[in-house]
Amino acid sequence: MSPDLLAGVDVGGSKIAVLVTDGDLTVCARQAVETGVGGPDEAIDRIEAVLETTLASAGLNRAELAALGVGVPGRVDPEAGSVTLAVNLGWHDLPLGPLLADRFGLPVRIENDVRAAAAGLHDRRVLGDGDDLAYLSIGTGISAGVVLDGRLHRGARGMAGEIGHVVIDADGPACPCGLRGCFEAIASGPAVARRAEAALDGGAASSLAAQRPVTAVDVYRAAAAGDPLALELAESTGRHVARAVHELVMAYDVRRVVLGGGVTNAGEVFLAPILRGLDGLRGASELAREVLPPDIVHLLPVGSDAGAWGAVVLARSVAAAGPGRRWSHESA
Amino acid sequence: MSPDLLAGVDVGGSKIAVLVTDGDLTVCARQAVETGVGGPDEAIDRIEAVLETTLASAGLNRAELAALGVGVPGRVDPEAGSVTLAVNLGWHDLPLGPLLADRFGLPVRIENDVRAAAAGLHDRRVLGDGDDLAYLSIGTGISAGVVLDGRLHRGARGMAGEIGHVVIDADGPACPCGLRGCFEAIASGPAVARRAEAALDGGAASSLAAQRPVTAVDVYRAAAAGDPLALELAESTGRHVARAVHELVMAYDVRRVVLGGGVTNAGEVFLAPILRGLDGLRGASELAREVLPPDIVHLLPVGSDAGAWGAVVLARSVAAAGPGRRWSHESA
Repeated sequence: MSPDLLAGVDVGGSKIAVLVTDGDLTVCARQAVETGVGGPDEAIDRIEAVLETTLASAGLNRAELAALGVGVPGRVDPEAGSVTLAVNLGWHDLPLGPLLADRFGLPVRIENDVRAAAAGLHDRRVLGDGDDLAYLSIGTGISAGVVLDGRLHRGARGMAGEIGHVVIDADGPACPCGLRGCFEAIASGPAVARRAEAALDGGAASSLAAQRPVTAVDVYRAAAAGDPLALELAESTGRHVARAVHELVMAYDVRRVVLGGGVTNAGEVFLAPILRGLDGLRGASELAREVLPPDIVHLLPVGSDAGAWGAVVLARSVAAAGPGRRWSHESA
Repeated sequence: MSPDLLAGVDVGGSKIAVLVTDGDLTVCARQAVETGVGGPDEAIDRIEAVLETTLASAGLNRAELAALGVGVPGRVDPEAGSVTLAVNLGWHDLPLGPLLADRFGLPVRIENDVRAAAAGLHDRRVLGDGDDLAYLSIGTGISAGVVLDGRLHRGARGMAGEIGHVVIDADGPACPCGLRGCFEAIASGPAVARRAEAALDGGAASSLAAQRPVTAVDVYRAAAAGDPLALELAESTGRHVARAVHELVMAYDVRRVVLGGGVTNAGEVFLAPILRGLDGLRGASELAREVLPPDIVHLLPVGSDAGAWGAVVLARSVAAAGPGRRWSHESA
C-alpha cells in the first residue's frame, strides 16, 4: 500500500503540536509537547523528535507518511518553503521546507500558522458551507487569516490580515512595532496583562494584586470570579475586539469571523464583552446591524487544534502533487 | 460591420458622465452633463438623452453600440442588474440593468461606481502591471474598490471596501450611519466642511469666515492660500487619510492605493498632508516602512474619469458575451 498518512505540525513559541491523519482526515495520532522548537540549528531535530514520538504513540512509522505540513508563527514564503522572519522563534530566512523535505524525503508545505488555520477551517467546513471567513487569532500577537471566494488570501507580500498593527486608538499605548494604539498593543494577551499591571501600579483595588506579575489568563480568571478591575479590563478589551471584527467585516465583507488563539481559551468571560460591543454597534447603526448578523462571530472551542489541522490541510494539498513536488504556493 | 462601440455611463448625484470608445478603448466621444439623474421613473430617459447627445456630438448613433456599462453610487446586484439601494439618488430595488437593456436592446452591466472604477484602473493598467490595487474614493462619501489577485473583490454581500464606516476615532464626530468617528464622518468632503463650520462657530479666525456656508473646496482653496485654520483642517484630514491607507494596506496587503473622488481634485494641498502622515507612520515603525513603500499612494489626475472608464470596462466585459447575455457577475 502506498503511504497515505498526512502529518501537520503546528510550531508555537513554547509548544509543538503534531496531528497525524489518514487521507480522509480521520485522526490517527496527536500530541502536543510543551517545548520550544529551538534555533535554526535545532528546529529540524526537534520537529523530527516530536513527530516520531507521535507516530510511535499510535504504532505508526514515518514510512507511512505521504506529506508534511508545517504552520509557523511568522512570515513565510510558501513558494521557496522558507521562513522569512519569525521574531518569536529567532528565525530569519530559514529554508524550513527544503530542510524538512530532505530529512523526511517527503513533500512539505509550510505556511504562516494563522493563515494555515484559516485555510484549514474553510477546507474542513468547520463552520459549514460558505466560501469566506476571517480567522482572528488573539494571543501573544494578533493577526487574521482570510479566506475570500473560497481561497486563502495571502496578499501581495503574504501579509494580508496583519491587522494587529492597525491603529485603533491614536492616543493609545505604545506598541513594540513603533506605532501607538495598535490593536495588538491594546487587546493581545501581553497587552491585557500590561494594562492590568498599570492599573495595579496606579493603586486599583483588585484580587490581582496578590499574583503579580499578572498574565491575561489571571485577568480573565479574576473577571470570571467577579473582580471589578478584571471585569473592566475584559469589558474594554471586548469593545476593542468588537471594533476589530467590525473593521474586518467592513473591509472584506466576510460572513463569518472565527476567534481563536491563546486569549480566547478564557471562553465566555472573553466572548461576552465582545458580543456586547457588537450589540452596541448594531444598536447605533442600521448598516452595522446588516453587516453584523447575530451569528457573525464564532469562538473556536478549546482544543480545536486549528493550527495543527491547518497544517494537515497543507500536507494534503502537497500530497496530491506527489513526492516530486515538495511545496506549493497554491491555496489549500 | 457589426456594432463595436462601448458606452460607459457614470451616474453621479448631480452629474452624468458618458464615455464612448471603440473595442480597443480608443475614445470616440465623451460628455459630462451637470444634471441629476432623477427618480426611478426619469432615470432611463435622462441616461438615454445624455447618451444620445454624446453620440451625436461625434456623429455616431446607437446602432453602433455593442454594449453599455453603468456605474452607480450605491449598492448593486450585478447578477440581477438591479440597484439595491442608492440613498443619494433615492433609488431602492431599481432594475436598472433590465430597463436599460430593454430600452437600448443591448447587453448591459451595472456595478457600484467605485468598484467599477477600481476594476477599470486595473483592467486598463493605469498604474502599470500588478494584480492588486485599492481605489479609495473620497468625496461626499468614502469607500474603496479593491482588486485582489487580478479580480475585483466584491465580498459576500457586495460590500467589501466600505471602509467609510470603519470607526477610526471612537470619540469622534457623529456619523449619519449612527456610529461615532467613522472615517467618513471625519474625512469626507461634507465632514471637512462641517469641521470648518464648527471651528468658525467657535470663533476661529480665518478667511473662510467670509464665505459661509463653507465647502470642502473652499477649505482646500483657503489652505492653498495659506489660511491657518484651513491648513490645520487639511493637515488633520491628511493624517486620518494616511491612517486609512495604512489600514487598507494592512488588511489587504495591496501594493498600490489610488486616491480619487471629488475632494482629491484639490491636488497637492490635499495630498501633501497625507504624504506627511504616511511619513510619520514610516518614521515610527519598521513594519510601516516595509508595507508603505514610497510609491504606495497615487493621486488620480483631475479629469481621469475613472468612473466613466470603469463603466466602459463593464461594457467591454458584457460585449464579449454577446446580445443574448444582458449582464454578468463575472469580474471585469
